[in-house]
Amino acid sequence: MIVILQADVTEGSPEYRQILDYLANKPNIATRVHREVGTIRSVTEIYLIGDTMALDKAEIESIPGVERVVRISEDYRVVGRHHDDTRPTGFEYNGVRFDQDNLHVFAGLCAADTPEHAEKMLRALREHGQACTRMGAYKPRTSPYAFQGHGKRCLPWVFELAGKYGIKVIAMEITHDSHIDEIRAALEQTGRPTGVMLQIGTRNTQNFELLKCVGRQSEFPILLKRGFGITLEESLNAVEYVASEGNRKIVFGLRGMKTNMGDPHRNFVDFAHVPVVKRLTRMPVCIDPSHSVGSRERSPEGILDVFHVAAQGVIAGANMILVDFHPAPAKALVDGPQALTLEELPYFLEDVAIARAAYEQRRALARRFVSKN
Amino acid sequence: MIVILQADVTEGSPEYRQILDYLANKPNIATRVHREVGTIRSVTEIYLIGDTMALDKAEIESIPGVERVVRISEDYRVVGRHHDDTRPTGFEYNGVRFDQDNLHVFAGLCAADTPEHAEKMLRALREHGQACTRMGAYKPRTSPYAFQGHGKRCLPWVFELAGKYGIKVIAMEITHDSHIDEIRAALEQTGRPTGVMLQIGTRNTQNFELLKCVGRQSEFPILLKRGFGITLEESLNAVEYVASEGNRKIVFGLRGMKTNMGDPHRNFVDFAHVPVVKRLTRMPVCIDPSHSVGSRERSPEGILDVFHVAAQGVIAGANMILVDFHPAPAKALVDGPQALTLEELPYFLEDVAIARAAYEQRRALARRFVSKN
Amino acid sequence: MIVILQADVTEGSPEYRQILDYLANKPNIATRVHREVGTIRSVTEIYLIGDTMALDKAEIESIPGVERVVRISEDYRVVGRHHDDTRPTGFEYNGVRFDQDNLHVFAGLCAADTPEHAEKMLRALREHGQACTRMGAYKPRTSPYAFQGHGKRCLPWVFELAGKYGIKVIAMEITHDSHIDEIRAALEQTGRPTGVMLQIGTRNTQNFELLKCVGRQSEFPILLKRGFGITLEESLNAVEYVASEGNRKIVFGLRGMKTNMGDPHRNFVDFAHVPVVKRLTRMPVCIDPSHSVGSRERSPEGILDVFHVAAQGVIAGANMILVDFHPAPAKALVDGPQALTLEELPYFLEDVAIARAAYEQRRALARRFVSKN
Amino acid sequence: MIVILQADVTEGSPEYRQILDYLANKPNIATRVHREVGTIRSVTEIYLIGDTMALDKAEIESIPGVERVVRISEDYRVVGRHHDDTRPTGFEYNGVRFDQDNLHVFAGLCAADTPEHAEKMLRALREHGQACTRMGAYKPRTSPYAFQGHGKRCLPWVFELAGKYGIKVIAMEITHDSHIDEIRAALEQTGRPTGVMLQIGTRNTQNFELLKCVGRQSEFPILLKRGFGITLEESLNAVEYVASEGNRKIVFGLRGMKTNMGDPHRNFVDFAHVPVVKRLTRMPVCIDPSHSVGSRERSPEGILDVFHVAAQGVIAGANMILVDFHPAPAKALVDGPQALTLEELPYFLEDVAIARAAYEQRRALARRFVSKN
Repeated sequence: MIVILQADVTEGSPEYRQILDYLANKPNIATRVHREVGTIRSVTEIYLIGDTMALDKAEIESIPGVERVVRISEDYRVVGRHHDDTRPTGFEYNGVRFDQDNLHVFAGLCAADTPEHAEKMLRALREHGQACTRMGAYKPRTSPYAFQGHGKRCLPWVFELAGKYGIKVIAMEITHDSHIDEIRAALEQTGRPTGVMLQIGTRNTQNFELLKCVGRQSEFPILLKRGFGITLEESLNAVEYVASEGNRKIVFGLRGMKTNMGDPHRNFVDFAHVPVVKRLTRMPVCIDPSHSVGSRERSPEGILDVFHVAAQGVIAGANMILVDFHPAPAKALVDGPQALTLEELPYFLEDVAIARAAYEQRRALARRFVSKN
Repeated sequence: MIVILQADVTEGSPEYRQILDYLANKPNIATRVHREVGTIRSVTEIYLIGDTMALDKAEIESIPGVERVVRISEDYRVVGRHHDDTRPTGFEYNGVRFDQDNLHVFAGLCAADTPEHAEKMLRALREHGQACTRMGAYKPRTSPYAFQGHGKRCLPWVFELAGKYGIKVIAMEITHDSHIDEIRAALEQTGRPTGVMLQIGTRNTQNFELLKCVGRQSEFPILLKRGFGITLEESLNAVEYVASEGNRKIVFGLRGMKTNMGDPHRNFVDFAHVPVVKRLTRMPVCIDPSHSVGSRERSPEGILDVFHVAAQGVIAGANMILVDFHPAPAKALVDGPQALTLEELPYFLEDVAIARAAYEQRRALARRFVSKN
Repeated sequence: MIVILQADVTEGSPEYRQILDYLANKPNIATRVHREVGTIRSVTEIYLIGDTMALDKAEIESIPGVERVVRISEDYRVVGRHHDDTRPTGFEYNGVRFDQDNLHVFAGLCAADTPEHAEKMLRALREHGQACTRMGAYKPRTSPYAFQGHGKRCLPWVFELAGKYGIKVIAMEITHDSHIDEIRAALEQTGRPTGVMLQIGTRNTQNFELLKCVGRQSEFPILLKRGFGITLEESLNAVEYVASEGNRKIVFGLRGMKTNMGDPHRNFVDFAHVPVVKRLTRMPVCIDPSHSVGSRERSPEGILDVFHVAAQGVIAGANMILVDFHPAPAKALVDGPQALTLEELPYFLEDVAIARAAYEQRRALARRFVSKN
Repeated sequence: MIVILQADVTEGSPEYRQILDYLANKPNIATRVHREVGTIRSVTEIYLIGDTMALDKAEIESIPGVERVVRISEDYRVVGRHHDDTRPTGFEYNGVRFDQDNLHVFAGLCAADTPEHAEKMLRALREHGQACTRMGAYKPRTSPYAFQGHGKRCLPWVFELAGKYGIKVIAMEITHDSHIDEIRAALEQTGRPTGVMLQIGTRNTQNFELLKCVGRQSEFPILLKRGFGITLEESLNAVEYVASEGNRKIVFGLRGMKTNMGDPHRNFVDFAHVPVVKRLTRMPVCIDPSHSVGSRERSPEGILDVFHVAAQGVIAGANMILVDFHPAPAKALVDGPQALTLEELPYFLEDVAIARAAYEQRRALARRFVSKN
């Protein structure tokens, strides 16, 4: 159960204390207070855990200072989209808004390999009006003998170059809590030229200690990718580990599921779950067409499968796309075979724009149809 | 290896005999002749099976009457899209053309239950300009105690009603070779008011005896659905059972894969394989959004998941859509919960049209980009 | 609901008619009578389908001639093991008893290829006291261009050789209902020298028309293999298609599930389901170690994986083993790489005997422990 | 490529330096020295990484001080069982030997909940001669709102009680590198009354940072569980992350794979992979029947499925069993439904002993058969 307080009821006010006193007297109920600080208004939510079935919703709503009470199911307490739940979706970070209504492309290098490649990539992004990118420093690889990314050594030049070309947000995978500190330090050292979205990869979706760490910091937003081998429900429960620690600036990422039923694609593309995640939660949804497909195969029309599945995600309402480019795919140290070339960047963006326009037409059509029926 | 003869080389001509004589002298080579009769031109193809590596492509091409020789890989000999293979895709049936370039919607009843429901459905289709439908007489059900369809008893009234409302092709699942005879008999009895596409369902994808039966007849085209629990490659090999018997009027159907990784959808939607099947074979590709999703859940935009995944298939180039409607879903004997209502028919068609227009824009863009690069 | 009649209540007796009259008067109840003819006693069971919740169990049990009434859940009506259900398991065929308590090895050729190979195989079986074998005439293969078995041509010599070496039961896959007639004809032609257990393979587990055909005949027992890509529950529902047509001489076969999670084995070995099938149904359970493993790899102890998984099935109570042998594996037309050699036959039988003895010790231990607690 | 030095060639000796000099002159070859300290003898291995194909095995073997050179495939460099590789398996820890030939049962509490429960458990273990147990302090749970274990608070009383009852090794899951320090500190604080095997659970199989941490310490052995959703090959590659950091005291754990194909079991039991892991690597193999099955269902013989699958693992050569017991399953905070009771402990041990004796008979039989053939 969530008790949402009126906007003017701040911590320490008499109403606030009265409400907590009331709740403290209820048996078998623990409370956890969350303060959502927004640009326009802030809101205090009190999460009640335990024997909430015994509580009277109307009674609590009658206490001064309480705006509304939302009864929630056990699952997805924090990120879930509950019944009679009209709270807004999304968040803003470093001047960029992420929510269930818009779309951002994060084209970039799977792994930051050399400053030259990074600069070529970033320059191309600026030329085509992009403010976001992906560029990994820490790369978890199946084999310990494969290239693992440059780690913290590359962070300063990655951030400086990003700033130079006007990038606002870099999606960057982390695999250990120490990486958060390393990223924060490198950003400070370089004068905060850009922002970072911390990405948790599919191998760490249920690395709960890491999830709690990223959840406890409030500086960086988080992109949590779906775990392979677990159900969607279990991946959404993993999101709760982040959110219940306080940070709710979370984007949920679909990246295909590992099973040979998806062959010849590298993973079984799961973008039909875009509308499902938007229905079950209030998170923006990201798709990763590059890792899902894993090759540069194309259909008889001459269109790459990577483009096809990106279009599939977008026409169903995806809000973010992670996509691998490389100035010289043959030289890429990680996942070269699936990378798009810089020449393909404007083509990809235009292809995505077609799918996005179609999505918006479909959304308008849905409103027309619903209003008529 | 396929030896494609010149158009004017007919069975019994001297060139024809010379070519077969030449091949008969080659050791360990069996031949199978296939004649593809088209409206504009017909073509004779001789399939060589056995030790074809030992044959000299250039030598065969130099024999009078031979137009071209295509070396094929072991897999998908007949339906495959081979290297240097520019043969056209698709076929025409009862005045309707099916190929990898166009799109047909087969909206209809999952199972023909009553003449009243069928008539309402068919009238709605005519009102919205549709010439195809789905309407099942034979329904394989997981439990033997569930409704199994009306079988041959309903065929006469289904066909008559279809004819009355101008339907050219009904997709209809069959589960036994005797059903082909029953359908043929009922069509003759009612004066051939419509046409039938024989559908092989996912439970029978590797029922090779049934595949051979439908392959041996040339009257009806075939919709072969992908099998669950087997790889795409294995399903495409199943198509060969049909095609190698002679009938190549085959559409390949995607309908989702059974695995709990697809939850909460009934099946894991596999429409990312639309471009893959078009690349590997020359078959038109059908999608079945109703059975893939299996519910009437909708995203926060108010759009049903069934619509979303249909749009995903279409924007990637799907050529046919099987979709369940029902005038009174609550009364449907099979799969009512996923059925769309007749009021939703024009809305669905308009939503599909948006996705199709986007696909066509994407196709044009690909041509522009390729010509530029 | 099953109404089990007293042993002396035969069809046509006054009690019999009275019971059926009583049931005929109940609304929305259909009846289906099944007569189980045993060597010691026979039993008549009346299956009630429909609105059985409204019936009074005690009232029916009070009708003269009724021995007992068993309320059954919707699933597995016929083959299921219901609450308060102490009916015996299994059946006898051609002098061999199949039930949940004993064990039969069906060693043999995956496919009958030549009379010489078959004779060597059968002679070895007789030498080691075996009365059962496997030997396929109809082989469904993923590719239509692979060897499909000799079909009905080989039946006469297979049956004659089997009879010559004292084989009582041959497990033989069929893929079409016409194969039943072919087998019956060949048996009659050769003077019934042996018996046949009709095997339905994993590709046809949900070929319901074929299941109904084998269910309608009562001459041959049936081995139904689990389907890949479907849940155990769905495979058990498929058994009902057979049983509800009348034939209940059914063995259920486990043969591994297709998924790359089972690599490097050909299939994911599922013999942990042996006790599950025995708990949910009254069928004997067969395991197929050869097709599950699909190779001759061995562990560091020098024991083949095929032996290991066979032992795993047997120590958990398996009742039948299908296992591939071949006098010359390198020459086998089907599945040679996994075949055991004739020299390995006594070794395999001894290895199985060790596992079976361990199972029997475990069963005795369970009885001791339960009686103590 | 691994260069194994003669036993008397120690670091700093002239032969040692000569060998390293020789290797240093080879282009594109990096070396990593590993010293395996055993009770009887120690061995120095030099791992060569890079362009090893260009090296001459015979030439290196002719250098003084080199005992043998093993060419290894790319995969499983450290833990793999390579061609002509007769190195011993396993290791000793706190007086207990773990290798591919013996068997240890780790019965215990899934989670240490109260000192009373722990003491009852441990007393029962001593009564039945057990020197190992499982008892978790850190429990990763799908939902953040579920009980997560007592963490470091419970370590002192767990260790003291273990020491009091003569337990030598406790298997204990860790989910963060800081847990290693907490365990080490608590062991020191309590005077090292027992030993700990660090368990990495299935959610962290590809948490490479954690793997590297446990690999860098040499005090505690490691039990690495197979990851769900990834292939066996990928899980074995994860082991390399541990081993390549130096610690090779690793047991590999099978615990079932998550897929609904395993229903009604909680996971799809994968113990057919016991011989596979023993063939591919030199690690002892552990099975976890409790988490695989996840219930107390039993077969008609009255034997619990947990017992059945444990017997299946053991008869195929498993070396370690993790199994959940609880003095009062209904009060267990984690996984109570699958726990065995203390009354069942002697019964379980006797059932396992039957399966182990059968395994040993099978091993002897294999030796007999091989010597004969």
